[in-house]
Amino acid sequence: MKIIVDAFGGDNAPLEVLKGSAQAVKELGAQLILTGDKEKILACSQENKIDMTGIEIEDAPLVIPVEEDPMKLLKKYYDSSMGKGFQLLAEGKGDAFVSAGSSGAVVAGACFITKRIKGIKRTAIATVIPNDTGCYLLLDAGANKECRPEVLRQFAVMGSAYMSKLYGIKNPRVGLVNIGTEDSKGTDLQIEANKLLKTTSGINYIGNVEAREIPLGGCDVAVCDGFTGNIVLKLTEGLAKMFSHQLKDMMMASLSTKVAAILLSGGIKEFKRKLDYKEHGGAMLLGARKPVIKAHGSSDAKAFKNAIRQAMNCAKNNVVEEIEAGLKAIQDEE
Amino acid sequence: MKIIVDAFGGDNAPLEVLKGSAQAVKELGAQLILTGDKEKILACSQENKIDMTGIEIEDAPLVIPVEEDPMKLLKKYYDSSMGKGFQLLAEGKGDAFVSAGSSGAVVAGACFITKRIKGIKRTAIATVIPNDTGCYLLLDAGANKECRPEVLRQFAVMGSAYMSKLYGIKNPRVGLVNIGTEDSKGTDLQIEANKLLKTTSGINYIGNVEAREIPLGGCDVAVCDGFTGNIVLKLTEGLAKMFSHQLKDMMMASLSTKVAAILLSGGIKEFKRKLDYKEHGGAMLLGARKPVIKAHGSSDAKAFKNAIRQAMNCAKNNVVEEIEAGLKAIQDEE
Repeated sequence: MKIIVDAFGGDNAPLEVLKGSAQAVKELGAQLILTGDKEKILACSQENKIDMTGIEIEDAPLVIPVEEDPMKLLKKYYDSSMGKGFQLLAEGKGDAFVSAGSSGAVVAGACFITKRIKGIKRTAIATVIPNDTGCYLLLDAGANKECRPEVLRQFAVMGSAYMSKLYGIKNPRVGLVNIGTEDSKGTDLQIEANKLLKTTSGINYIGNVEAREIPLGGCDVAVCDGFTGNIVLKLTEGLAKMFSHQLKDMMMASLSTKVAAILLSGGIKEFKRKLDYKEHGGAMLLGARKPVIKAHGSSDAKAFKNAIRQAMNCAKNNVVEEIEAGLKAIQDEE
Repeated sequence: MKIIVDAFGGDNAPLEVLKGSAQAVKELGAQLILTGDKEKILACSQENKIDMTGIEIEDAPLVIPVEEDPMKLLKKYYDSSMGKGFQLLAEGKGDAFVSAGSSGAVVAGACFITKRIKGIKRTAIATVIPNDTGCYLLLDAGANKECRPEVLRQFAVMGSAYMSKLYGIKNPRVGLVNIGTEDSKGTDLQIEANKLLKTTSGINYIGNVEAREIPLGGCDVAVCDGFTGNIVLKLTEGLAKMFSHQLKDMMMASLSTKVAAILLSGGIKEFKRKLDYKEHGGAMLLGARKPVIKAHGSSDAKAFKNAIRQAMNCAKNNVVEEIEAGLKAIQDEE
């Protein structure tokens, strides 16, 4: 199995990508293809004494800027580090692709270079988020700001396949993010999607889920349009940061609270680890014909290593095939 | 100044309403009119030895059930405890109204019995939420699941007036809740609302605000449609609960962490107090001709007392007049 990695995606490229890749080879036994400016990659690895054993390089000197129109990936930046990665993935040179480049460009590359699974209307950014009982999958976290009900239904099928295959959850509880649990709640989108999801085969749909219940373990897969999902994802990030600050202030208030902080240091570390996005690798772009992992823009070596691990797991566990099977099951209902 | 209180709104009515009302009279010098079944109110106060000095009762034997169609408040339940409250408010018998009844019915009563401020298209549920630097106002938190850009603009004006008058914030920073800061981000609603808000007089509009920045103090007034606002409000509640659980688990892990918990007890209390909705009273229904406070359905005596305090503050600080002035300032722009 080979994982393709965009060496020039994210704020800390290429150094942290290279470090994380070397760790993935060493610790996970990964076989990697790095795409990007070969000269720069070699210079960076030599300068920082990074062992490149087990890592091939595919030369692609261009880099698509984050602020660039994502669709430019298909023309001007077709042979950029990211474009090349999607090409290699489409050609079957690798089994999954990892990039920390802009979400928009990753979506464009997955849809139009690697292509979507047959029948998939939209790809979704799926993010695993810690909750009170473990974690849940949120999708769409931002690929499609507006969606139609039948698109949300496909998201439900994809998310369900992902959580059962990758997290070993039997019959994942799929919920529709809404402002109340009653069938009448929400806009036309939620009302129609709720109806559709109730009659969808092969998933364990538990109905509308209020935002309050999501962090408390109310569902395993939270389905929504990308606008709502992005609000949920980023508010969760912001609140986690706020609580960390408040906790720190509490600990630093006096000598006795500082003593308490020492006594709690193990627990606090565990708490922070739980909330750390780096532990979960990256977001998965569900709906592409091959696994595509979108790593966080600010990923460091550890985050890249975990994103590569996630890519390996997706490929190994046949997540794409599971999604295809799920789609087949609802074919007659569409 | 007189505050009207719905004695039969909320899960804990009438007992907690009566207790909270008696506390408000004693501690805040409030003058109150309670609406509801007079016989039941008197029986409850006698049974629980609640001092009813300074509290008038307006007999209204009916109660509108929470699950009832809110519009029934205008017909079948016109003379219910809630309907009566809105009538008294409209007639000028009191200066503000507090109810813990269903949000839908409160919105209906405010709009169609007490009536809206001239020119106001929609009323908004405005909730003060704690953040890392103090608090911010979220509106709409759920009165209107869908909104037009010009409605969001009025929300911005109302929210700005509220935060400057009630929280003494000079030129409150108004942000539009969105999935990115660039002008191109969001659906048509956000794109158009952002344009409108940029040209709105009398408010300090700081542009699109990402959900991540909201709990970190990114704005003083967060404007959005009621669907988005309800997601933000309830996710905040759910995450606060999750973090409390995690904190508790951390503290209970071993003997030494239990010692730490004792050393931190003051800080933890303060932390919980900060996140406690009861401290902030209730949500304000902005846009009605008189101050209307929607208390939390699960309010206890303390929450009712604080909601009455909030009602008194709104009346005393002429929040409604400030909103009218703000509307006048943008009249020519509409």
